[in-house]
Amino acid sequence: MTDKEYIDLCIEMAKENVISGNGGPFAAIVIKDGQIVGKGFNLVTTNNDPTAHAEVNAIRNACSNLNTFQLNGCEIYCSCEPCPMCFGAIFWARPDKVYFAADKAEASRYGFDDSFIYGQITASIEERTIPFEHIISKKLFEPFELWKQKTNKIDY
Amino acid sequence: MTDKEYIDLCIEMAKENVISGNGGPFAAIVIKDGQIVGKGFNLVTTNNDPTAHAEVNAIRNACSNLNTFQLNGCEIYCSCEPCPMCFGAIFWARPDKVYFAADKAEASRYGFDDSFIYGQITASIEERTIPFEHIISKKLFEPFELWKQKTNKIDY
Repeated sequence: MTDKEYIDLCIEMAKENVISGNGGPFAAIVIKDGQIVGKGFNLVTTNNDPTAHAEVNAIRNACSNLNTFQLNGCEIYCSCEPCPMCFGAIFWARPDKVYFAADKAEASRYGFDDSFIYGQITASIEERTIPFEHIISKKLFEPFELWKQKTNKIDY
Repeated sequence: MTDKEYIDLCIEMAKENVISGNGGPFAAIVIKDGQIVGKGFNLVTTNNDPTAHAEVNAIRNACSNLNTFQLNGCEIYCSCEPCPMCFGAIFWARPDKVYFAADKAEASRYGFDDSFIYGQITASIEERTIPFEHIISKKLFEPFELWKQKTNKIDY
C-alpha cells in the first residue's frame, strides 16, 4: 500500500469511529515492514480516559503486539496531526516517520483546537491556564540517585 | 496532608518504583477533596508501553476510579515536572492545579532530558529529528463532517 492508501485507511477508520459512537473523529495505524502492527481509535469518552487518543492507542497496541516499548523501524499514519500529548508519545516511542492527513488548522475549523495546548506548552508557568507550582523538597533527588546507582536497570 | 507532604509521598513512591524494578524514578498522585483518587508509577519497560509515564498512569487511574474523563476539582502531584506528553495529558484531563518536585533542569542532570522533546515541539517540521509529512487526501474532512453532523455525540 502507498502512503496515501494508508492515510485513507486512517480516515476511513476515523469515520467508522464516529459512526459507531465510540469516540471522536480520529484514527491511527502503525506500519512495520508493510504490515499493520497497531491500530488506534479515539476512545476518550468510551474508556473514560483523556489519554486515549488515536495515536496513543495505536502506539500502545503496536508495542503490545511487538512486545517492545520502542517503535524503531515503524511508521505511524494518523488521520490528523498529533496533539502535543500524542507528539510527546511519538517521541518516546521513536518511530522512523509520521504521516498525517488533516493539519492543526484544518482540525481547528471543527472545534478541535490543539493549538491551545501547543500555546500552553511554550507559555511560562505564570501564563498557564492550569497553575503549575514547583514545590521544593530536600528529598527530590533521592529517586534519581537510586536510579543512578541501580545496576540492573532497563534504560528507556 | 499539606502540598509538601503529598509531594514527599510522590517522591517516596518514585523511590519504591526504582527499588522494585518496575520502572523509572517517577510517581504521581491525584487528589480530590483531600483523598488520593489516583496513583501512577512509571511502567514503560514493565508494561512495554512508552506512554506509561507516572502522570499518564495517575490520570488514567483517577479517571477509572472516578468514572469520568475529566479531572476538574482534582489536583495532581508529581515527583518531577511533566514531560510534553504528560503536559498534554494534563491539559486534556483538566485538573485544577499541578504540583511537581524536580524540575526539567534537575531531571536532566540524571539523563532524563525531556527538554529535547520540548524543543522538538516548537521546531518546524523540517527541523524535527523524526520526519513528519502532511499527506493531502480529498477525504480528510470526512471524519470531521460526520462528527459535526452527529447529534448524539459526547463532547470531550
